Amino acid sequence: MTSQELQRGTAVEIVTIGDELLLGFTVDSNAAHLARALASLGMHVVRRATVGDTATAIQRAVAEALERSGAVITTGGLGPTSDDLTKQSIAELFGRRMELDEEHFRWMEERWLKRFNRPLPAANKQQAMMPVGATKLQNNHGSAPGVWLEDERGRWVAMLPGVPREMRGMLADSLLPRLASRVATGTVVRSRTLRTTGISESLLADKIGSMDGGPLGVELAYLPSITGVDLRLTVRDAPERDAMGTIARAASRLRDRAGQWIYGEDDADLAAVVLEMCRSRGLTIGVAESCTGGLLGARLTAIPGSSDAVLGGVIAYHNDVKRETLGVSDATLAAHGAVSDEVVREMAAGARRVTGANVGLAITGIAGPSGGTPEKPVGTVWLAVDIDGEVTTQLHHLWGDRAEIRERAAQYTLDQLRVRLLANQSAPAVRGASVSVAR
Amino acid sequence: MTSQELQRGTAVEIVTIGDELLLGFTVDSNAAHLARALASLGMHVVRRATVGDTATAIQRAVAEALERSGAVITTGGLGPTSDDLTKQSIAELFGRRMELDEEHFRWMEERWLKRFNRPLPAANKQQAMMPVGATKLQNNHGSAPGVWLEDERGRWVAMLPGVPREMRGMLADSLLPRLASRVATGTVVRSRTLRTTGISESLLADKIGSMDGGPLGVELAYLPSITGVDLRLTVRDAPERDAMGTIARAASRLRDRAGQWIYGEDDADLAAVVLEMCRSRGLTIGVAESCTGGLLGARLTAIPGSSDAVLGGVIAYHNDVKRETLGVSDATLAAHGAVSDEVVREMAAGARRVTGANVGLAITGIAGPSGGTPEKPVGTVWLAVDIDGEVTTQLHHLWGDRAEIRERAAQYTLDQLRVRLLANQSAPAVRGASVSVAR
Repeated sequence: MTSQELQRGTAVEIVTIGDELLLGFTVDSNAAHLARALASLGMHVVRRATVGDTATAIQRAVAEALERSGAVITTGGLGPTSDDLTKQSIAELFGRRMELDEEHFRWMEERWLKRFNRPLPAANKQQAMMPVGATKLQNNHGSAPGVWLEDERGRWVAMLPGVPREMRGMLADSLLPRLASRVATGTVVRSRTLRTTGISESLLADKIGSMDGGPLGVELAYLPSITGVDLRLTVRDAPERDAMGTIARAASRLRDRAGQWIYGEDDADLAAVVLEMCRSRGLTIGVAESCTGGLLGARLTAIPGSSDAVLGGVIAYHNDVKRETLGVSDATLAAHGAVSDEVVREMAAGARRVTGANVGLAITGIAGPSGGTPEKPVGTVWLAVDIDGEVTTQLHHLWGDRAEIRERAAQYTLDQLRVRLLANQSAPAVRGASVSVAR
Repeated sequence: MTSQELQRGTAVEIVTIGDELLLGFTVDSNAAHLARALASLGMHVVRRATVGDTATAIQRAVAEALERSGAVITTGGLGPTSDDLTKQSIAELFGRRMELDEEHFRWMEERWLKRFNRPLPAANKQQAMMPVGATKLQNNHGSAPGVWLEDERGRWVAMLPGVPREMRGMLADSLLPRLASRVATGTVVRSRTLRTTGISESLLADKIGSMDGGPLGVELAYLPSITGVDLRLTVRDAPERDAMGTIARAASRLRDRAGQWIYGEDDADLAAVVLEMCRSRGLTIGVAESCTGGLLGARLTAIPGSSDAVLGGVIAYHNDVKRETLGVSDATLAAHGAVSDEVVREMAAGARRVTGANVGLAITGIAGPSGGTPEKPVGTVWLAVDIDGEVTTQLHHLWGDRAEIRERAAQYTLDQLRVRLLANQSAPAVRGASVSVAR
């Protein structure tokens, strides 16, 4: 971090606490959420550490981070069980003893009675203990309050719960407003992400070539995941207005070079993008899924308000369901097999007929690990998009394990629909008859 | 960490590298996987840190970790783009320069031509650069090799890729065998996890009460997640045989106290548990999903070999699909509404009829954020299990956001089936007519 950041109070460190994190039994999603929320205030996470549930480890990591940055957010260790040591350990570090917050304790007792019709379990009492002189951070999603502890030099530790929903609620309700009023910053960190799918990181890098950072030094990062590569543009330590202008210009250059592959920005979910396109065109969707077994339907219906456009569908895992519910013909199955251009077309038509939707989406393939043959190895997947009877199909040879193949199959089906709707006309019958996706 | 761990070479630190991690654009799943794999060798992750894509930050974190523990594993920053700085930065720290690995470069060129029928993009060349004196760690899942770098004092850094599939492959193929041959340890860290669902952390803690750690000091941790609470037992620094015996005795005590809530151990997926129970009883499954929109089907079919038992199902998002495909009657829908005991029963029966399965699973509810009413608020979910015409239903009032409500609905449906199959008889028509799940 820069000494400038320290002076302005925009540098912060995160310490996530829990044996379950250190031993790898839980994946830490809190740190990522925190970092994004802090960036919106112009605050910058300069280091992150994870330690186990021992007082010494917690104290050492928090002390080091306080020494470096003067500002620390911890998550975890506020629960009702004996391995929850965060409050006591950090109170010791600040030379404070613990006392019972009577008001909070009564609130917990009442809440428990009302919710569960039973007295508060004894184990929960420690959740109402607070370091002397600390400020309580309200928890509207659980029973453990958060803690704000500050020393005479203005160095602070904010302790948040480890349960993601509680952490997120407390952050939004209590901590962010508190931090916003402290941070005196004229500059911000701003970033914008353009999301692509169906193209490898290397090919994308070749298409985009070098980017001139400009006077504000916009950074471009390639972030590959199972379903695509995100392009993230970041400007640091710039006045808000300049940052936004610089990023907008860089984003427009990226769109010039890779526009067809970009389906959305920032958190955009391809399912939400496609749903919005259908909604605005008055189109409804039905699905027919074999190897994905419901995953495409689950992705579409994960979007709030999806019932505007999604009518339903058929999970046609067994061939009998393909035949009897979707109306795939015996002859087609016998002649071409379940994983074929012919069958996926009949499945998409069946999805439309069963649900009465304009758009039928169908997936049939071999997700593995078994079931592959020399002609149709694991990863062979046929996808179809039927819009009012006009059908396009794609054959993909997907890499990865069962979960990755299924995720990609759902993603590429959505992208096929996106490209069709963009073109507003039927695409060639087979776009990229054999598409392999690297990384 | 203890000085004993240092002497035996069992302490290791993890440094994960990437702006995308620090800024929160990616959730770090690699650290968790690494920790679990290392524990199997008796190695113990004592600290974890995350730093951004700058040479200084990488060097500082790796130097500190080397100083403390002498053993560091990094992930990330081995890709083909300009923000991939891991190898160069750590080579500098070790005072080594970079040189081209000709053999690897030729292999990359050939592989690219064969896979993509195009010459290797220029950007990829840096993936074949290696620090002088380093050992290459084979990557069987991508083009970036890993790096093993060791100094004259025996302190080492292993650099693995950030892409999870590549990291996992390289760890298993190259790094773990190398570490196994170095670690001279008579003792191990062993743990075992018992998984519960449908009971809150506090209630579980009350049922289990205090556990005597015994002479080896077995630790018990409560790990809550969206779909349940895991109970993890851990013994550290014990001879293998003693550790396993101690854990087995502790696990059996937990089963005595909370057996009915425990559906499996360690990585067990409730969907896999239920599938195995169906398989062994010769039962087949069909699903009917409204608010989960395919999620239950997706969970079941995520399990390799699920086609033995899962036939398919219907995503009945719109009421027309409930009526026309599942055969839910107009009268029932009109009298009770789509989220009701009566409708979920007819859906489960419909799932059996459509797929021809013995077991019909059905879910209908209000996942939110909109759609709730005073009588049926968001989170109201009806679940049904129909086994050969014998139907049980459950009403749940679920907390959380849309995603959490959907995940819990799928999980509790699977658990309802598990409990039914265990009892090997029909459960009371409504088990826990109104079950709320805390945390």
